[in-house]
Amino acid sequence: MKKIGVLTSGGDAPGMNAALRAVVRMGIHRGHRVFAFYNGFKGIVENESTEMYNRSVGDILTRGGTIIGTARYPEFVKPEIQKQAARNFKLLEMDGLIVIGGDGSFRGALELKKLGIAVLGIPGTIDNDINGTDSTIGFDTAVDTVLDNIKKLRDTASSHQRTIIIEVMGRTSGWIALKSGLAGGAEAIIVPEMPFDLEDLIHRLESGIARGKKHSLVVLAEGVMSATELSDKMKDAMGFTANTVVLGYVQRGGSPTASDIILASRMGARAVDEIASGMSGVMIGLLKGELVTTPFEEVIAEPKIIDPNLYHLAMALVH
Amino acid sequence: MKKIGVLTSGGDAPGMNAALRAVVRMGIHRGHRVFAFYNGFKGIVENESTEMYNRSVGDILTRGGTIIGTARYPEFVKPEIQKQAARNFKLLEMDGLIVIGGDGSFRGALELKKLGIAVLGIPGTIDNDINGTDSTIGFDTAVDTVLDNIKKLRDTASSHQRTIIIEVMGRTSGWIALKSGLAGGAEAIIVPEMPFDLEDLIHRLESGIARGKKHSLVVLAEGVMSATELSDKMKDAMGFTANTVVLGYVQRGGSPTASDIILASRMGARAVDEIASGMSGVMIGLLKGELVTTPFEEVIAEPKIIDPNLYHLAMALVH
Amino acid sequence: MKKIGVLTSGGDAPGMNAALRAVVRMGIHRGHRVFAFYNGFKGIVENESTEMYNRSVGDILTRGGTIIGTARYPEFVKPEIQKQAARNFKLLEMDGLIVIGGDGSFRGALELKKLGIAVLGIPGTIDNDINGTDSTIGFDTAVDTVLDNIKKLRDTASSHQRTIIIEVMGRTSGWIALKSGLAGGAEAIIVPEMPFDLEDLIHRLESGIARGKKHSLVVLAEGVMSATELSDKMKDAMGFTANTVVLGYVQRGGSPTASDIILASRMGARAVDEIASGMSGVMIGLLKGELVTTPFEEVIAEPKIIDPNLYHLAMALVH
Amino acid sequence: MKKIGVLTSGGDAPGMNAALRAVVRMGIHRGHRVFAFYNGFKGIVENESTEMYNRSVGDILTRGGTIIGTARYPEFVKPEIQKQAARNFKLLEMDGLIVIGGDGSFRGALELKKLGIAVLGIPGTIDNDINGTDSTIGFDTAVDTVLDNIKKLRDTASSHQRTIIIEVMGRTSGWIALKSGLAGGAEAIIVPEMPFDLEDLIHRLESGIARGKKHSLVVLAEGVMSATELSDKMKDAMGFTANTVVLGYVQRGGSPTASDIILASRMGARAVDEIASGMSGVMIGLLKGELVTTPFEEVIAEPKIIDPNLYHLAMALVH
Repeated sequence: MKKIGVLTSGGDAPGMNAALRAVVRMGIHRGHRVFAFYNGFKGIVENESTEMYNRSVGDILTRGGTIIGTARYPEFVKPEIQKQAARNFKLLEMDGLIVIGGDGSFRGALELKKLGIAVLGIPGTIDNDINGTDSTIGFDTAVDTVLDNIKKLRDTASSHQRTIIIEVMGRTSGWIALKSGLAGGAEAIIVPEMPFDLEDLIHRLESGIARGKKHSLVVLAEGVMSATELSDKMKDAMGFTANTVVLGYVQRGGSPTASDIILASRMGARAVDEIASGMSGVMIGLLKGELVTTPFEEVIAEPKIIDPNLYHLAMALVH
Repeated sequence: MKKIGVLTSGGDAPGMNAALRAVVRMGIHRGHRVFAFYNGFKGIVENESTEMYNRSVGDILTRGGTIIGTARYPEFVKPEIQKQAARNFKLLEMDGLIVIGGDGSFRGALELKKLGIAVLGIPGTIDNDINGTDSTIGFDTAVDTVLDNIKKLRDTASSHQRTIIIEVMGRTSGWIALKSGLAGGAEAIIVPEMPFDLEDLIHRLESGIARGKKHSLVVLAEGVMSATELSDKMKDAMGFTANTVVLGYVQRGGSPTASDIILASRMGARAVDEIASGMSGVMIGLLKGELVTTPFEEVIAEPKIIDPNLYHLAMALVH
Repeated sequence: MKKIGVLTSGGDAPGMNAALRAVVRMGIHRGHRVFAFYNGFKGIVENESTEMYNRSVGDILTRGGTIIGTARYPEFVKPEIQKQAARNFKLLEMDGLIVIGGDGSFRGALELKKLGIAVLGIPGTIDNDINGTDSTIGFDTAVDTVLDNIKKLRDTASSHQRTIIIEVMGRTSGWIALKSGLAGGAEAIIVPEMPFDLEDLIHRLESGIARGKKHSLVVLAEGVMSATELSDKMKDAMGFTANTVVLGYVQRGGSPTASDIILASRMGARAVDEIASGMSGVMIGLLKGELVTTPFEEVIAEPKIIDPNLYHLAMALVH
Repeated sequence: MKKIGVLTSGGDAPGMNAALRAVVRMGIHRGHRVFAFYNGFKGIVENESTEMYNRSVGDILTRGGTIIGTARYPEFVKPEIQKQAARNFKLLEMDGLIVIGGDGSFRGALELKKLGIAVLGIPGTIDNDINGTDSTIGFDTAVDTVLDNIKKLRDTASSHQRTIIIEVMGRTSGWIALKSGLAGGAEAIIVPEMPFDLEDLIHRLESGIARGKKHSLVVLAEGVMSATELSDKMKDAMGFTANTVVLGYVQRGGSPTASDIILASRMGARAVDEIASGMSGVMIGLLKGELVTTPFEEVIAEPKIIDPNLYHLAMALVH
């Protein structure tokens, strides 16, 4: 029997609850005890935790968000706060900690590991910008959410003659923009990983109009610029104003897709077994269809960038 | 047998296709011929029309947008353009025209009536800002679209501790903001019909926080100010930044709700019978559950404003 | 200050939670105390109740089902059980009871009224088979749920050449079948209020095929016969087997539409005021856009039947 | 420049249109000409085909079904029909054929290959029962469709105390049942790959009730038995009647998920390049994240069965 801690950290993502449920239930199934810390690392520092039972995670499997909360907690970069967390964690006689979150969370987790805590990561973020996994929990749902909106925009864009810019999440990573743009047949996809070329964009849109296309959708990752900025730039060049949509936190919400729930369930269950077997300092990931572990150092070394082949496929298929 | 023209005008709305289908099929069912003009009044002026058959409107019942197009056409305020339209219309030996659109479209329709055209209106706009009807085609769908987004925002807002501003359509009318805010339990609803009071808003949000509320949603009609503007104002007063969502044309898209399809079908069918019986210069509306007609002059005299009782109900139920 | 009891009874319906929230919050807003009985009338008989506060109904506005439960409770027809309920209710010194449910629930409510309890009804059932209201809470949502399924069936039916029967709820009432069939453009709609004529159905489907129609959808209210029965009858006559879909309780689930939430909120708030003003023995209804009250005796005298005009409209528009 | 034929065959699946679009547009992009045959192999035999252009596949990316039709065509097992198809195909001077469908379609494709046609397969079926690929086009969408229905059933099942059986597609394969049941937290999942044990099922449901569980959902693959049959068996043993839902062809409909669209787009684009490079007799598949080819003989040798680890994971997480 082990005592396992679990927390969700960073921006919430659909499927975090499913991962939490898997950690709790597989933990209990294997004979361990599981404790949740509230609001991420803050819950360790401020000693806010509770023991979790099978019933504690009833009816959350398909719900968005995270029932144990998550919080921005910039203070956690301070060594004394990290030490306080490690002290508190040890006083509770915990055997290990499972951190569900993004790369920022894994930086914090790595510090705890250095302070002697056995800690394991599960990638939960809609951004899919994490090395060591082909997909993060919440990404599939976020892409479907954007796609739903693109479909609605198509309805109206094809009735009028319009250019619409839809700004999606992704400060350093264009994954959401790329996959939703590819699936939605966007006329242009603008991502941080590719150089932005206004002339090329205008040319692409105008040649579409010349071919008889009545409307155009541009999917824009927020990290490149805001939809308003892009609209201003395009107005000067094209002489008309594009309409803008800013989805914001809508992309973080919604009930997770089956794919995200299953990914989260598999990762959560695996994390329990890894932590029970003494593994520490690694993140569970899904690479080429298999669950694997990657050291935090590799995970956080650099952000995962988009697959350029998908980008070129998207552009080849738009006419 | 009559020859009936039909067009969709102004901003498109979900359910316009259902109205078109009803006009075409009920028209043919009654023994008339029906012709569609493309892209609103422009289609009359530029002589772009086509005869419609039962099959022409197959498979469009549940599709958003309008298959016969709609266009902004500011030139139509010019008397000579109106006269050109009337001339063209008469040359086609049409007996009457059915205009599916909003108040701007009915102003144009009224001008045609003055030039001797039998013309009838069907209220198709998501804004629900039209006198003479309790609901416009597309409004129910738009409200459900906003509600879906509010539900997604709740997921993430309750995981973090957040204030989110969701900007919705409505330049002069707060109907979309009011109904979606009431249905979504928004902590604040800001509409053009009510004076904006920043202090009252801040007080409302802060007292919610004081009562232990973890997050707040503000639904804002675009006619009052933009989400960015409101966020700036709130930041100065509250010391933190609200997140913003701008739904834009997403609200115009999507497959219509059953309620909108049925409203559109009933109105379209009725419009055929009214025009065939020689009625002109009126809009079909649904008032207190009954289809009625109201003269264009009354319809366009002033915008329909929100029901303050619903606003007060919304505020009484939020805690 | 009054003490008001509330319960949900009969089949659950989307929007019951919104009605409950409105009763609780408007009750408290007006200075009353509100108590919920669990699982319908059974909760009164078995003394299972709890006081409700503003927070008790937090986060339920857009959730399907009913958080206070509902149960089939056939024993409630027995006079001694009714008397026990009345005794229990009076011992709690309650001033009145609000019953959210269908016609069976109002029969029970009427018995309680005869035993001296002030009791008021709110129509909550997906079936829309209640006199005294144009729409019941949950009906709009159920129709949209069926419509969503019809749209999915269209996708596949038009790829193959197929006839599909979709069986929907409605033992004595065809409202769900009628509105979903009208909105979904079903080739045939079979409801309990209309005589079933197999020959006419076959003729209608075959003439569609003769006109080049590739697929047909038949919406069937369960009260007429099961989808399997109809399929068997059609097979003998047409020589091929239709596919069948049975939606069952799926129709009771899902998050309520904005329209149902608002209807429920208005009715719940109004019920508080009626019961506080001493009204008893009536159901709140929405007739011609206005909230009105109708005595239980009238409400339960006979089921509300479908509007034949809508049926004929549906049939006129299908080609 | 090559002349490439393409057809969709067998049961339709969401994403077939996306695959078709990718074949057409990537084909043209690479300088080839692409021709669609209508209604599967029947279109070759009956010489019903048309050249496809970029515009031919405009606006279909996110639509369910297949715009070029598919048909059951049992006659195609006859050698003389196959020879007729091969003759027709050669007369058109086609260089190769891309078949989008399931295992039955690949049997037909293999026969054509034996008759000297270069033919390539793309796995399009909601059943995911195809060897040589981890996922088939349409499977992800079908699972999400079932999950949506499970979520609706949860709403109502938790208001009442109920057992509900939901029958899903899968004659020989339990993939849809397994993934939707795992994602929906079903209390029991019954698949063709596992022996059915009524006593074990009853025990599982009753022990849930003993633990205080108010409702149970059983996901049943149609290949084991019908929902009605299972309900009858359970009634004898448990003394009450479970409710049943039969989703039928609803599972084949709906707009494809982003994941299915992207899978279809990648496979379609790859198929063009394979056929142009002279590859024949293989199916494109996605194995461990990579596009690969597998000979038809291997693909059709036996159906792909479910992953028992996922089944055991599902059962371990239900309480």
